[in-house]
Amino acid sequence: MRLYVTPASPWVRRVVVTILELGIRDHFEFVQTRWPHSWATRMTGINPAFIEATPVARIPALVTDDFTLTDSHSICDYLNGAFGDFRLLPREGAARWRALADIAVAGGIIEAQISRRAELLRSDSERSSDFIGKMRDRQLRCFAALEKQVPSFGADFDLAQITTAVACGYEDWRYGTDWRGPAPRLAAWYDAVSQRPSMRTTEPAETPQA
Amino acid sequence: MRLYVTPASPWVRRVVVTILELGIRDHFEFVQTRWPHSWATRMTGINPAFIEATPVARIPALVTDDFTLTDSHSICDYLNGAFGDFRLLPREGAARWRALADIAVAGGIIEAQISRRAELLRSDSERSSDFIGKMRDRQLRCFAALEKQVPSFGADFDLAQITTAVACGYEDWRYGTDWRGPAPRLAAWYDAVSQRPSMRTTEPAETPQA
Repeated sequence: MRLYVTPASPWVRRVVVTILELGIRDHFEFVQTRWPHSWATRMTGINPAFIEATPVARIPALVTDDFTLTDSHSICDYLNGAFGDFRLLPREGAARWRALADIAVAGGIIEAQISRRAELLRSDSERSSDFIGKMRDRQLRCFAALEKQVPSFGADFDLAQITTAVACGYEDWRYGTDWRGPAPRLAAWYDAVSQRPSMRTTEPAETPQA
Repeated sequence: MRLYVTPASPWVRRVVVTILELGIRDHFEFVQTRWPHSWATRMTGINPAFIEATPVARIPALVTDDFTLTDSHSICDYLNGAFGDFRLLPREGAARWRALADIAVAGGIIEAQISRRAELLRSDSERSSDFIGKMRDRQLRCFAALEKQVPSFGADFDLAQITTAVACGYEDWRYGTDWRGPAPRLAAWYDAVSQRPSMRTTEPAETPQA
């Protein structure tokens, strides 16, 4: 299977950490993608094989012999079910729904992080400081919500924890926001899980420029 | 359970159609939300109960006694599993992964539709015509991809079909794009399913202004 990646994307990192935690790295060919900063407003840096594989033209995208999955939600659901025996997210029941609740909040942070990044990459004249503030405030509200969830985190580094850890890691790398001050339990938890091999080998780095 | 809604949101419509198709409308109190057009760049129109319920501050949001789900992916997964015996999306296996592939493409359209709408609501000076073109092109590529999928659509109006139909309906309502010309099979399929009671009673309408 081909997985289109870049080390700067938290959505990609979520998938790659899932792969590493499931111990199935050898099933995948990782294809590095290149994106000039103009990706924020333009369709660019796209090679024909990639656009053939995914009409959404975003990463991550996972190409199997049978189908192509074009977002991290579907990819993680597939990996967890087809290769993980539902170890990272329960198949059904209250434990699944509660995990999905945390995933949606952590995913809300990641969406805001990416939207804020795209805004920062726009030209000065087209950049909205209001929008950047809206995204930052959403991120901080979501970190505060996850802080309340930490006591209910289980011993396993499951998909809710993976998504949360990726959000924390991107925030440190890209923005250096002080999310730790208002969220001390989350910070202590993150400092521990960020030492896992799956997290250490996927630390964010800038995308190669096209 | 409380579901925060507005008739303009395709993500909300996806959830409401799912509820109607599952025949479980009486489980939910629908709470109408109000959003001034400045939602595109500002946090606004938010009442305290809503912000308490969802740190992401977006709709749809479903509040149960036990947890809150803050995006349509988690809500539909929950409704399908907890109330639908996995009738609208298989619990696991190739049929689930293939449905997720179509859902991701249809969801890619809806994301682009909303991002384009937010862009159009920005002030003239902060609006990027490049970005609007990028979203429009993504939508058209995804409609073309779904056109190829129509022959594999099953007899049941499942979650992949619901998501696709909502994307088609929003495109007609908000943009009037000619997606039908390049996608005649999708158009014929949509013209049929759009007559279902679940679709007819959820036709898009403008959000009440705050």
